[in-house]
Amino acid sequence: MINDTLSALLDFQKETEALAQVAGRLSWDQETMMPRGAAMQRGEEMAAMESVLHARRTDPRVGEWLSGLEGSELDPVAAAKLRHIRRSFDRANKVPAKLAAEIARVTSVSQGKWAAARAQDDFAAFAPVLAQVVALKREEGAALADGGDVYDAMLDDYEPEMTAAELDAMFGEMRPRLRALREAVLAQPEPKAVTGSFPEEAQLALSAKLAGVFGYDFERGRIDKAVHPFSSGSGSDVRITTRTNPADPFNCFYSTIHEVGHACYEQGIDPDYALTPLGQGVSMGVHESQSRIYENQLGRSRAFAGFLFEQMQEVFGDIGIDSPEAFYAAVNRVQKDFIRTEADEVQYNLHIMLRFDLERAMVAGDLAPAELEGAWNERFEKDFGYAVPRASLGCLQDVHWSVGLFGYFPTYSLGNVYAGCLHEALRSDIPGLDDQLARGETGQATGWLRERVQRHGGLMKPREVIARACGREPGAGPLLDYIEAKFSGIYGL
Amino acid sequence: MINDTLSALLDFQKETEALAQVAGRLSWDQETMMPRGAAMQRGEEMAAMESVLHARRTDPRVGEWLSGLEGSELDPVAAAKLRHIRRSFDRANKVPAKLAAEIARVTSVSQGKWAAARAQDDFAAFAPVLAQVVALKREEGAALADGGDVYDAMLDDYEPEMTAAELDAMFGEMRPRLRALREAVLAQPEPKAVTGSFPEEAQLALSAKLAGVFGYDFERGRIDKAVHPFSSGSGSDVRITTRTNPADPFNCFYSTIHEVGHACYEQGIDPDYALTPLGQGVSMGVHESQSRIYENQLGRSRAFAGFLFEQMQEVFGDIGIDSPEAFYAAVNRVQKDFIRTEADEVQYNLHIMLRFDLERAMVAGDLAPAELEGAWNERFEKDFGYAVPRASLGCLQDVHWSVGLFGYFPTYSLGNVYAGCLHEALRSDIPGLDDQLARGETGQATGWLRERVQRHGGLMKPREVIARACGREPGAGPLLDYIEAKFSGIYGL
Repeated sequence: MINDTLSALLDFQKETEALAQVAGRLSWDQETMMPRGAAMQRGEEMAAMESVLHARRTDPRVGEWLSGLEGSELDPVAAAKLRHIRRSFDRANKVPAKLAAEIARVTSVSQGKWAAARAQDDFAAFAPVLAQVVALKREEGAALADGGDVYDAMLDDYEPEMTAAELDAMFGEMRPRLRALREAVLAQPEPKAVTGSFPEEAQLALSAKLAGVFGYDFERGRIDKAVHPFSSGSGSDVRITTRTNPADPFNCFYSTIHEVGHACYEQGIDPDYALTPLGQGVSMGVHESQSRIYENQLGRSRAFAGFLFEQMQEVFGDIGIDSPEAFYAAVNRVQKDFIRTEADEVQYNLHIMLRFDLERAMVAGDLAPAELEGAWNERFEKDFGYAVPRASLGCLQDVHWSVGLFGYFPTYSLGNVYAGCLHEALRSDIPGLDDQLARGETGQATGWLRERVQRHGGLMKPREVIARACGREPGAGPLLDYIEAKFSGIYGL
Repeated sequence: MINDTLSALLDFQKETEALAQVAGRLSWDQETMMPRGAAMQRGEEMAAMESVLHARRTDPRVGEWLSGLEGSELDPVAAAKLRHIRRSFDRANKVPAKLAAEIARVTSVSQGKWAAARAQDDFAAFAPVLAQVVALKREEGAALADGGDVYDAMLDDYEPEMTAAELDAMFGEMRPRLRALREAVLAQPEPKAVTGSFPEEAQLALSAKLAGVFGYDFERGRIDKAVHPFSSGSGSDVRITTRTNPADPFNCFYSTIHEVGHACYEQGIDPDYALTPLGQGVSMGVHESQSRIYENQLGRSRAFAGFLFEQMQEVFGDIGIDSPEAFYAAVNRVQKDFIRTEADEVQYNLHIMLRFDLERAMVAGDLAPAELEGAWNERFEKDFGYAVPRASLGCLQDVHWSVGLFGYFPTYSLGNVYAGCLHEALRSDIPGLDDQLARGETGQATGWLRERVQRHGGLMKPREVIARACGREPGAGPLLDYIEAKFSGIYGL
């Protein structure tokens, strides 16, 4: 009886998961393959898929199956599956369909307005629709929070069981050390950048090679070009995208390695979990820990930079840099800049803290969306020491808020913190790591991550996966120690 | 009240159509982009989409809405939409879900067995599963026929209201004239073929140019490579594929023009019909009429061949042929061969007649599937005058029967017949056509087809579209006259 109910629920869920994969691939297609003239029709197609998925997630039979099973003796895998399905069912049922539809409608408009406003550096043109988005998301957050903290409820969507209070404590530990380091580093002479000619085809060929070096499985994936790099899909069809900049080949290489980290997480999940709720990365923070550790702790290490230096000389000839040490400094340059996505390891988390505080204030009603630009610019100057010249370099730089992603930004920093913990544990388990990385061998490191983190998919809760992998409760210490040691070395502090 | 019911039905249908487009794009992805290792998961995704679509097509509300509307006074467009929805609803409800699932299961297995058997030239390895497919399709046909003729019911799936008796009469008129022409042509010396070097990139570039020449709208489509060329999608996202053969550039060029014909039909439909039952080509026969007239009556005309001759010389240099007349003969070579998809205009329909008679006999129970190879070889030798050396050149050459497509083959010939009628009418309406084609201008001809045929989508019944476009009831006469005149000219008969 229990078994029949469980089978019925999991069969139904498998179809839902398969449909979610289809919807995800439709988004991939939209960013990579879709002809321009198909945008309107694609909107209808996406809406139809969303409506099918929403109907399945709120299907009353799911509630009945869950009630029939909860309290039963279940193995840990089945119990974890049920936990995810319950979460998704409750979430979908808490938000009134009318509100969900209104959010979908308004955010699709506001994304367009954001893009236009950014192109014109005109925050005022974006402010009214941002106010609408904030109001709707607050309403949704209140429905999800059920009397609890609204921002925590939003956060829970991306990082289950994380709270703003914990993030506050974490950022409180990080802020002074990162600001001090930033000041010391920027007082030093700036390292040399690479120069030369970096044709697109050659960049793409080398980035594909790097993807292979980091263990990306091309039998179950592919790489295409897109305006913004992303990873998409789970199970045996996990695709990534990259982009090229003729003047800056690192943009292509490190975007690729970053997305390979995301993709290897998905590809590394136990195949038995495919098309179940355990068959995806467990949270945004844990996902970002994989992309970050591939990109930074491994990919931007002194040892791996040496390997990449050789590869680039082979492919591009003279790149204006003549020693591995100078090359290592070039891939880790710290510069005065405004853009989060291009920030180095020292400054990245400072960008996040700013967003975290401002979005919390908007959600709490302490900051009117119309006042965002002023608040952003004031805070930026306080944190970074120089003024934001225009909105596209300030509060209009990120798409997130325009599409209603509140509570998402801090998971980037959480990913960095998790990556710091994983890196500390991994280093102590693999004493010969640098010799391997210097030869372009990542197998032991990525194998360690697959075994400790990736293969579990959604089996454990986010913090539990990291804690068990590292043998310690996650905290910002290891990340801060690593960043300080690394950049003190590079900048001779 | 009528209006509310109609809106409810059409809104529901719009979502169904959008989901059908998504399922179609998933198939496109499978043939063009999907990583190899994703095949199993893709099977689950396709099955989930099919199950969603089947549930919508048989949704009892559709039946209620239809009953509430039938008998009402409706404008012709709404009436045509209702006619299509009724057809689809009745069809989906006539076939028991268990039988439909069994057909899906068996044909997915049998396609694999067919491919393996073809690779081994081993009909016996395919015969048992073919027998299963035939049995299941007969059961389905009987359910659809509702006491009527089973083969006609199958045919109706691809060509509404066409009957085997009519096709019999049509083929009876065609067979003697085509066989006589074939014999006369093959008694003449064989024209020279092109020779030279035809790099893939250059073939693809010229084929894209040809697509543009025939009016394919790249803003609402794209061209990719695939093993078998096809066209996919409706509305504002209609994609085609092509392939290259280093020794035979015509394969790429004429496959492309053929698929462009299919795609322009879809792209040419009145945009008001998008995501309604009128928003697709109305039948396989009418679809094939467009691909064939683009490929043959226009693309393989003396005038257009002259244009292509210049293009090819420009791109490839010396192609071993030095006059437009010899080039025209080369693109229209008639050769002793075995393969339908590579057949010329003279022999193509003879290949179809053979398949039509054999599949009817299997469906009627007059030919046991196990006896197919013998029957095929006997008939082929009778029609073509030489023996089939192995099954991959005979009864295993086409995928159709392995996936349960019975009643599909004759629509290819019907498309040729319709193309013949359209071509006759189009020639008489456009006296300067050859001058235009010689300059690579197809706009007036394709505009005529768009206006007379393509834009109507599913508004009229198949035969009605053709009859109104041509001002006469369709028949084989114009096609036969055209083929005889053309090949008598080329072969100096």
